Amino acid sequence: MKNYLLNVFTLAVAVISFPILAQNSDPLPSWNDGQTKQAIIQFVSDVTDANSPNFVAPQDRIATFDNDGTLWSEKPMYFQILFMLDQIKEQAASHPDWKTTKPYSLVLSGQIDKLSLEDVLTMVQKTHSGMSSDEFTSIVQAWISTAKHPATGRPYTDMVYQPMLELLDYLDSNGFKNFIVSGGGNAFMRAWATDVYNIPSERIIGTRLSTEFVNVDGSYQVKRVPGIEVNNDKAEKPQQIYQHIGKRPIASFGNSDGDLQMLQWTTSGTGPRLAMYVHHTDDQREWKYDRTSSIGKLDKGLDEAKAKGWLIADMKNDWKQVYPTK
Amino acid sequence: MKNYLLNVFTLAVAVISFPILAQNSDPLPSWNDGQTKQAIIQFVSDVTDANSPNFVAPQDRIATFDNDGTLWSEKPMYFQILFMLDQIKEQAASHPDWKTTKPYSLVLSGQIDKLSLEDVLTMVQKTHSGMSSDEFTSIVQAWISTAKHPATGRPYTDMVYQPMLELLDYLDSNGFKNFIVSGGGNAFMRAWATDVYNIPSERIIGTRLSTEFVNVDGSYQVKRVPGIEVNNDKAEKPQQIYQHIGKRPIASFGNSDGDLQMLQWTTSGTGPRLAMYVHHTDDQREWKYDRTSSIGKLDKGLDEAKAKGWLIADMKNDWKQVYPTK
Repeated sequence: MKNYLLNVFTLAVAVISFPILAQNSDPLPSWNDGQTKQAIIQFVSDVTDANSPNFVAPQDRIATFDNDGTLWSEKPMYFQILFMLDQIKEQAASHPDWKTTKPYSLVLSGQIDKLSLEDVLTMVQKTHSGMSSDEFTSIVQAWISTAKHPATGRPYTDMVYQPMLELLDYLDSNGFKNFIVSGGGNAFMRAWATDVYNIPSERIIGTRLSTEFVNVDGSYQVKRVPGIEVNNDKAEKPQQIYQHIGKRPIASFGNSDGDLQMLQWTTSGTGPRLAMYVHHTDDQREWKYDRTSSIGKLDKGLDEAKAKGWLIADMKNDWKQVYPTK
Repeated sequence: MKNYLLNVFTLAVAVISFPILAQNSDPLPSWNDGQTKQAIIQFVSDVTDANSPNFVAPQDRIATFDNDGTLWSEKPMYFQILFMLDQIKEQAASHPDWKTTKPYSLVLSGQIDKLSLEDVLTMVQKTHSGMSSDEFTSIVQAWISTAKHPATGRPYTDMVYQPMLELLDYLDSNGFKNFIVSGGGNAFMRAWATDVYNIPSERIIGTRLSTEFVNVDGSYQVKRVPGIEVNNDKAEKPQQIYQHIGKRPIASFGNSDGDLQMLQWTTSGTGPRLAMYVHHTDDQREWKYDRTSSIGKLDKGLDEAKAKGWLIADMKNDWKQVYPTK
């Protein structure tokens, strides 16, 4: 009984002490001290302070994050496109005709620069459909556990942003619900993002490819078929947030013009709001691009962020570290 | 310090004791002892037992529930249709032409039996669109807090099933994530269902009406517009579960042929599975209907449930009580 009491007491102290320790330590150690970090902490402190006029109840602490370019890198092209290209190469052996059939032949002969957007979409459909939901998850998981980024040689899941992981964790530990709202495929992301970002599967909102409900020898499957049900980009993002979550976020994070409408909707709500763009300014540790980039173009959004005083996380100056230490 | 220690100890004991107490007490007091109740408890005990070969990790304990006829009543017609009819009557004063314009005139003159399905859809669109997302939520909340059911005189939220509330709570306290997967509108349900069922907004999957993203004097809104984006019924249910949750449920609960595909997909997964139909057999305390009902028709589903040994909760015999005591 004595030991039992001691254990109970130790447990109780541990439970009670932890939040106090967490409050005193730096929740965002990979962020340089400065206005951006200060504004984030000020916002979180404010909405979680029961005595503040800006207090927000936990069930309304909804935060939405774009993925490509906001939580992980997106150069030289979206990682999901690199997955698709790897799949084409892997499946080429069982499709001998691809050697002489465009657009596959362009991939197999290394002429990726000659691919049109239509070519890419054709091959995305080819590699993302025709299998059951479970099979597709297995394919993505097999790829992401072994594939390496062509420029850094890192596994793709090591190219997430350490400062953003800390931000996700900081919000989560302050009662926020984090959601991903990305143009990436929802099934592609769910195959790995729950583990990497600590975000449950149902809080991952993405582009929806078409499906069918099929009976295969008495066993029922959701089968992935060609077609796009929802292209989760631009003005579709706030609408999909409404359809999926049913609430307007109080904080949103993006990096491109494709996220602008999500940030506009977030900041049009009443009460305290946080909108932030990740600005890719670091050509040494990551990439540097904005207004003229074909991927992750940030032009109108940059103007609006400046005009409205949204936060702009300058990757070069605001982040001590870009990728996690491995 | 002494008092502080005492409080800490009391807290710790309370935290530790509660699960033990919960295990020993009856988790489903409104269910009669019998095969159905026993099978539910056996399933939950099995998948939560770390030493069982049927153990399921918490993140995969996904349970999906139909709403109309499964969690609350659906007679004489879906409550969302009764909401629509009330809205037509309420708005009639500002639409004098409705008195002589079908289908509105049929509602206003009490000839509801003459409405066609097309008439109903027309008026659903009329009453469910043309406003912002926030305005629609307010409209539904105003209605549900005052409206009474035409037959029972009860508030609609008092016509939820007490045994199903206990089941939701039982699953939740055993680490399950409960989701609603209904043909009802997602925004209509979210306006009240979170409070009534203790299910967060993002775990409510329903029919999606169309939306637009609009700029009203510099403030951005998601506006509800006529049109149906997803009709969440029959084969659409498993597909929407896949799109929204990204996981196959291990337990599903329905009451009609519209839920059959959800139950088929659930039970086609590997490992332990639970599928249950609520069978409306009680014309004294609720309603009695199945194979020939225009609303909540249960015909093919009843045959398949019997053939496959799915649970059938016989409302008359399995439930001690139907609605909550108020």
